[in-house]
Amino acid sequence: MNTFGNIYRLTTFGESHGAGIGGIIDGMPAGIDVDMDFIQSELNRRRPGQSRLTTARKEEDSVEILSGVFEGRTTGCPIGFLVRNANQHSSDYDNMRDLFRPSHADYTYTVKYGMRDHRGGGRSSARETISRVVGGAFAQLVLRRLGITVRAYTSQVGDIALPGTYRDYDLSLTEKSPVRCPDPETAQRMTDLIMQVKGDGDTIGGVVSCVVQGCPAGLGEPSFGKLHAALGSAMLSINAAKGFEYGMGFSGMHLRGSQQNDIFVPVAANGTDCDRHRGDSGRITTLTNNSGGVQGGISNGQDIYFRVAFKPVATVLMEQPTVTTDGTPTILAARGRHDACVLPRAVPVVEAMAAMTVLDYYLLDRATRI
Amino acid sequence: MNTFGNIYRLTTFGESHGAGIGGIIDGMPAGIDVDMDFIQSELNRRRPGQSRLTTARKEEDSVEILSGVFEGRTTGCPIGFLVRNANQHSSDYDNMRDLFRPSHADYTYTVKYGMRDHRGGGRSSARETISRVVGGAFAQLVLRRLGITVRAYTSQVGDIALPGTYRDYDLSLTEKSPVRCPDPETAQRMTDLIMQVKGDGDTIGGVVSCVVQGCPAGLGEPSFGKLHAALGSAMLSINAAKGFEYGMGFSGMHLRGSQQNDIFVPVAANGTDCDRHRGDSGRITTLTNNSGGVQGGISNGQDIYFRVAFKPVATVLMEQPTVTTDGTPTILAARGRHDACVLPRAVPVVEAMAAMTVLDYYLLDRATRI
Amino acid sequence: MNTFGNIYRLTTFGESHGAGIGGIIDGMPAGIDVDMDFIQSELNRRRPGQSRLTTARKEEDSVEILSGVFEGRTTGCPIGFLVRNANQHSSDYDNMRDLFRPSHADYTYTVKYGMRDHRGGGRSSARETISRVVGGAFAQLVLRRLGITVRAYTSQVGDIALPGTYRDYDLSLTEKSPVRCPDPETAQRMTDLIMQVKGDGDTIGGVVSCVVQGCPAGLGEPSFGKLHAALGSAMLSINAAKGFEYGMGFSGMHLRGSQQNDIFVPVAANGTDCDRHRGDSGRITTLTNNSGGVQGGISNGQDIYFRVAFKPVATVLMEQPTVTTDGTPTILAARGRHDACVLPRAVPVVEAMAAMTVLDYYLLDRATRI
Amino acid sequence: MNTFGNIYRLTTFGESHGAGIGGIIDGMPAGIDVDMDFIQSELNRRRPGQSRLTTARKEEDSVEILSGVFEGRTTGCPIGFLVRNANQHSSDYDNMRDLFRPSHADYTYTVKYGMRDHRGGGRSSARETISRVVGGAFAQLVLRRLGITVRAYTSQVGDIALPGTYRDYDLSLTEKSPVRCPDPETAQRMTDLIMQVKGDGDTIGGVVSCVVQGCPAGLGEPSFGKLHAALGSAMLSINAAKGFEYGMGFSGMHLRGSQQNDIFVPVAANGTDCDRHRGDSGRITTLTNNSGGVQGGISNGQDIYFRVAFKPVATVLMEQPTVTTDGTPTILAARGRHDACVLPRAVPVVEAMAAMTVLDYYLLDRATRI
Repeated sequence: MNTFGNIYRLTTFGESHGAGIGGIIDGMPAGIDVDMDFIQSELNRRRPGQSRLTTARKEEDSVEILSGVFEGRTTGCPIGFLVRNANQHSSDYDNMRDLFRPSHADYTYTVKYGMRDHRGGGRSSARETISRVVGGAFAQLVLRRLGITVRAYTSQVGDIALPGTYRDYDLSLTEKSPVRCPDPETAQRMTDLIMQVKGDGDTIGGVVSCVVQGCPAGLGEPSFGKLHAALGSAMLSINAAKGFEYGMGFSGMHLRGSQQNDIFVPVAANGTDCDRHRGDSGRITTLTNNSGGVQGGISNGQDIYFRVAFKPVATVLMEQPTVTTDGTPTILAARGRHDACVLPRAVPVVEAMAAMTVLDYYLLDRATRI
Repeated sequence: MNTFGNIYRLTTFGESHGAGIGGIIDGMPAGIDVDMDFIQSELNRRRPGQSRLTTARKEEDSVEILSGVFEGRTTGCPIGFLVRNANQHSSDYDNMRDLFRPSHADYTYTVKYGMRDHRGGGRSSARETISRVVGGAFAQLVLRRLGITVRAYTSQVGDIALPGTYRDYDLSLTEKSPVRCPDPETAQRMTDLIMQVKGDGDTIGGVVSCVVQGCPAGLGEPSFGKLHAALGSAMLSINAAKGFEYGMGFSGMHLRGSQQNDIFVPVAANGTDCDRHRGDSGRITTLTNNSGGVQGGISNGQDIYFRVAFKPVATVLMEQPTVTTDGTPTILAARGRHDACVLPRAVPVVEAMAAMTVLDYYLLDRATRI
Repeated sequence: MNTFGNIYRLTTFGESHGAGIGGIIDGMPAGIDVDMDFIQSELNRRRPGQSRLTTARKEEDSVEILSGVFEGRTTGCPIGFLVRNANQHSSDYDNMRDLFRPSHADYTYTVKYGMRDHRGGGRSSARETISRVVGGAFAQLVLRRLGITVRAYTSQVGDIALPGTYRDYDLSLTEKSPVRCPDPETAQRMTDLIMQVKGDGDTIGGVVSCVVQGCPAGLGEPSFGKLHAALGSAMLSINAAKGFEYGMGFSGMHLRGSQQNDIFVPVAANGTDCDRHRGDSGRITTLTNNSGGVQGGISNGQDIYFRVAFKPVATVLMEQPTVTTDGTPTILAARGRHDACVLPRAVPVVEAMAAMTVLDYYLLDRATRI
Repeated sequence: MNTFGNIYRLTTFGESHGAGIGGIIDGMPAGIDVDMDFIQSELNRRRPGQSRLTTARKEEDSVEILSGVFEGRTTGCPIGFLVRNANQHSSDYDNMRDLFRPSHADYTYTVKYGMRDHRGGGRSSARETISRVVGGAFAQLVLRRLGITVRAYTSQVGDIALPGTYRDYDLSLTEKSPVRCPDPETAQRMTDLIMQVKGDGDTIGGVVSCVVQGCPAGLGEPSFGKLHAALGSAMLSINAAKGFEYGMGFSGMHLRGSQQNDIFVPVAANGTDCDRHRGDSGRITTLTNNSGGVQGGISNGQDIYFRVAFKPVATVLMEQPTVTTDGTPTILAARGRHDACVLPRAVPVVEAMAAMTVLDYYLLDRATRI
């Protein structure tokens, strides 16, 4: 199942140390101007080696569009794309061939497929997210036109968490810090923590928060295609993701229903929210947005916000006991250049998956509006 | 999108106050003995009116199997089933026709479809979960044969949380308490809290925890079909679900990679874990299970465990401000019999969704093992 | 795979001699008036016992709508429906339990599933087409509003074939003859042939032709979702179908390209065809329609026409040699009431499958038109 | 919908005069030896310029495997592949930019997408079948291991038809003739006809016949996933296909049921057919195979045979009237190198689609055999 989506569909391929990473976007609306600079810049945000926080590997990750674009616009035909792998040090991984790295996919791939490409994690490598970022960037080209924005940021690293919500920060500052946290002071503390952990040869996890704004009401397909379920599946499919919550999420259990319900009110004549709504029901909004912009699985025109938990990177630069593929105890000593914290580079991936999900559900919703 | 699954597929229909709730199970293996008592007993666990904790509505919810079973065994053909609605007091909802209940799906359904069945929430009612429980019960019939068990329980209500994990309790006690918490003392405190909230006409949320045991290694389909992403989507599609985490989940960010990694070790000659594994890689297990039984999106033979957050029921028996469908402010005074806490009745639904997901991925995994 | 379609999706269940036949329609647009008389009348056209041509079995085949319709209109939620089986003479089939009827699905179901419901063919019975007719009738309710008509008729029985095309006959006469052939003289000859074959205890096949008119240009999804490929799959999934061709079909090989190409011409100012076209390309039509209304897999606004071959019914009222389920030679002597020719009753089924396919592709096409 | 299949899934991209043609194969079983010579040789069979019968364009069509293969074996991960376009004379098509070629997809693509890549047909070009051939070649690698063979041949060109069935010819001779007809004398007559048509600047259609042998009983998924419906959809999705029939097909209407039924008989002790069957039902075969190897939508272990009609290539080297994109009458004078008859090059494409379909259904059937 290397295909994501229903109408806007991304199918991907590629391993860490194979020829390249790529994919096919199907269901792209025709006639959309293709802003190649934007697409490449999204890839650059995901690229390793952007700052001292992330792995020092230099990867150019330059994307080639193979089809589906003609004279600068999408044709409605599938968009094939390819990012060649470069700077491959496959021999770095020779010592991985015959052992299972703890908390990686080495063991499970071997059991499932009877074999694996041991170089850099093969298909299970986070390099796979390159395809997601390209798919998301094309989706963003459409969302822009629809007035829908998707913005993610690092809201927690280890025990350092942003105290507020997306409304409390200037999200345009997110890209100013290498850790992609919009609050400069917190960003600095997160950076310090990551550098300390990195110095220990260890790794650390955290949380990415994301908000989708300008999304019209009516997106989501009950009962198994609830919008938040689709977002959850999309986020949980990202490497190292361990949890997803939207709206009040896990903290909602501390409030009673009467406290948590979002009260409907008429939108004032000069309100701007009403533009997001459709149909006869028109000019209605809610006083609060504890629901996270989704009610009964369908967007209600409010901001859609959610959080994704990421575990620490499994590769630590310390000796770890493990076993060989035939079950003999051994010691793993990882080498090479690895992220001490995946969060900064996860931010554009979260945005990409959110963009594809929202566009897919936008198109699905259109289908039956005759 | 009223279909769930890839190979084992459940398609559902039905509204709260229509003729009935039902569905079609496709992809059911042939030749499985159909234990109708078990299927009905699962429905009974979901049924309202089981205890003073849940709504006093009496619903028989008796399931009729319409096809796909012949002489007591499944035929491999689709299983149609129907649970007739009874005890319908549609007039209870007359005052709902022209207003939007806060934090229900009333508004979003109206915007999406241009109309709605206002009686009891219509399609968005939690009565829809009847079909899930039937689908899950049939899945359990197969999982039993495969030695896979799925057990959920209430681990938190409001601020009252079980301190331990599934390993710390005797899960056979879950059904002994009306709140479906396996720790008698905590169960009593949860019960007291729910009764207090109920007395206030209010509602409260919580967490259901679930563990899947005996699942073979190798289930899960990277990269978009990771097993935990499928479980997440399944859980988030349940009414009132707001969050999903597996393994260390959101708490994993507090630990470093070196602390969280699950170290591989050989299974002792008399170990029992090895039965769950397959192929050459054979007799390997992990010292800890912070991964939650899934690595790289594929089961590793360890216990799969996860948690699902549920918000408080949106219907409170207090006056709430809201608006009519044409946007005029009004006051909603809900009547009738409603759950003060959905958790106890969510437990069998979580189990059902987990059972269907695991079976579906078991069958998917088989497909390409030639 | 008991689900048909992408956006407009029909999932079905039911066996010949089980509790009933039914299904779930998902993706039905909301707000459509439900003309129950029309839906039942379509079922009546499929029903056995309409004339001396078809089996004398009396089946009421009354459909109950279980969900998805509220106050006479569709709600956008899934439409569950059920047609109870009645008049079951299961004991008629006792002698079938342990043998395989020639050219039926008895053997293949047994091999595939390890068992079968031997009563009246079980799931493989043509009673399964009841669900298709209901799904098609709902689709017709939408197509009506879109100005798209679907009309099928019997164009060949045995060696008796209509010499002309759909343009040469008054298709409103189709329902006047029991054989559903719009040419009265040919219809009479077909009827005589069927009665003669029936008198011999034998059966005979034929061809159903179908034309879809008023379909806008632009429907069809290259490359694997070509409109004619979807129609072909839909038709070939009907019991006893053996072939499908559209446009010039198998006879096109006799003409050269220069003879067969459909020349584009401007539509005269008073032309009516142009209404079917969209977008800038506007007022263009073709001199001929050898393409059958589909070019490159996409409708071009012309009439879509195709033919479906049906084999003779496998049940003949003569003794036939066969084997028992354990491979011992035996003699089968079929009893009961059976169609000597399936063609008349296949006509509404062909229409139903065509209606669902065209609607599904109409909705798919809408999805990406932003 | 540029994805084909359920478990074994091919997703494709690419236009005639873009960067290249390629695809992603998902669901490939792991551990299969990848015979690159075979894969390239299959592409060579499809390649233009093989003989004077086909277009004189020289296309190398060399395939690069980008992922999913490690140390010569499949890994179970998606196989990305790319065939770069070369020898592009885009300027050949400058005169096509502003007009619609008769019976091509120019008009329908323009209406559907609001634009088109006019160079060589863009996405609608038969170069798209390159991806199908690669997908089919990988499928063949698995079918080989399963003992299943797929062989197609040209059985009719214009009015010249092979009188017999696949049983009457030595199919190993198919590749000996440029027209891919296994009967040398008929092949010569077909060749002569094609050369004559080519000399006239015209084109001609025909029929490809195909037989699948060694396929086990039990493949096919009623009711909408009947094996022959899947084959029909697969074949009809090939460029220029106009019809599909299997078993007796359209000619079956001339025979009565008693004549056409396939009588079951026990397999003699030394029979070889029994190997194809499974389970308890065991050693049974049929005297005739009018059913074409599929009964009730499920394979019965007999040879599966079918025929596909192809229309004449739409590009003729004669002047044809047409209209410009704004509807003004004009004259089209095609230039360049084009096939006068697509049949010889369609043979490997038919085989590829059949191979993918049969493998996909083999894997689907496995899924629910627990």
